[in-house]
Amino acid sequence: MTQHAETCLEACVSCIEAFNTCFSRCLIEQAHHDLSGCIRLDRECADMCELAAKAMQTDSPFMKQICALCADVCEACGTECQKHDHGHCQACAKACIACAAECRKMAA
Amino acid sequence: MTQHAETCLEACVSCIEAFNTCFSRCLIEQAHHDLSGCIRLDRECADMCELAAKAMQTDSPFMKQICALCADVCEACGTECQKHDHGHCQACAKACIACAAECRKMAA
Amino acid sequence: MTQHAETCLEACVSCIEAFNTCFSRCLIEQAHHDLSGCIRLDRECADMCELAAKAMQTDSPFMKQICALCADVCEACGTECQKHDHGHCQACAKACIACAAECRKMAA
Amino acid sequence: MTQHAETCLEACVSCIEAFNTCFSRCLIEQAHHDLSGCIRLDRECADMCELAAKAMQTDSPFMKQICALCADVCEACGTECQKHDHGHCQACAKACIACAAECRKMAA
Repeated sequence: MTQHAETCLEACVSCIEAFNTCFSRCLIEQAHHDLSGCIRLDRECADMCELAAKAMQTDSPFMKQICALCADVCEACGTECQKHDHGHCQACAKACIACAAECRKMAA
Repeated sequence: MTQHAETCLEACVSCIEAFNTCFSRCLIEQAHHDLSGCIRLDRECADMCELAAKAMQTDSPFMKQICALCADVCEACGTECQKHDHGHCQACAKACIACAAECRKMAA
Repeated sequence: MTQHAETCLEACVSCIEAFNTCFSRCLIEQAHHDLSGCIRLDRECADMCELAAKAMQTDSPFMKQICALCADVCEACGTECQKHDHGHCQACAKACIACAAECRKMAA
Repeated sequence: MTQHAETCLEACVSCIEAFNTCFSRCLIEQAHHDLSGCIRLDRECADMCELAAKAMQTDSPFMKQICALCADVCEACGTECQKHDHGHCQACAKACIACAAECRKMAA
């Protein structure tokens, strides 16, 4: 794996953890706040980052295209998560933005 | 694939569709009802059924064990979905119960 | 789900089964033939079609982009599978081409 | 997440990387060696560890059962990988054994 791919992989793995934590916590807090946008995107982003991580780990011929799409999905999730004050949403937004930036580099 | 596995695979594939539909609709209705248990289990069951479907499609040596666990997860999801009157929750509960029964046969 | 999405979803689900069957059979025949390209793409396409199916089932905001990428991956797999005479490779190639066509319609 | 779960999650994440690397390298070396058992189990274990990681990240009610099954799958993969001298197979075997041990602790 190249150094770029290694860094991007780490960003994806961190993001998956942030998404799943945020997903789970949002469900608990859902009774008092509308977090449905967050919950939906957390799940989708976690799946997308898993695909991107796998692409880098297996040196996929579609790595660049998968990372380009992963960057789009992470940016959308980051924009949504930023709207909410919960610690896990803010942490997730931060992980999304970092991951999107690494994925853009891979896709270039 | 055996006839048993073929039937179980169909039940898993139907269940995945029911889970994902229910997940998506529950998120929309979430503002007015507490569907967080349903949303959580819909996602987990969809992942579990995907693993079970893949196990049957690839003739996995862990097919029986995966189907046994899939039956447990489907039963839990069916029990939760049954509590809610929405059409998609009731449809999901029905798919869960059918899938759990097929998975139990595979696991036997 | 729109009629287009419904048809595309069916194509993806059929493809996943074809990929996983082909993956498993190729591994058995691998000793006598070089099927590594097929095995690699079978796995990647199955993952990609799972993501696309989930996108349609959950009415994802990224449905079009995911389907566009899925079409690319399916076309690559179809081209590889077509080179091999085994029944499962030919069946997989056929499923890939059909799925790619449906995914292109969704992406349009 | 408990400290146990945190450690187990790390073991799963490391394992996924080891499986996918081993999968990809085995496909390249496949022409000269029979690595089909390894390739098959690498894919299945990666999927199983992804499910286990997600279970810990989302605090799943099925965490223990998923980890118990994950331990079984990792042990089978470790036993297979140990038979092969390639660096990636040996690294994968080591990751499998470590992950199986952590999963057993979680399942207890």
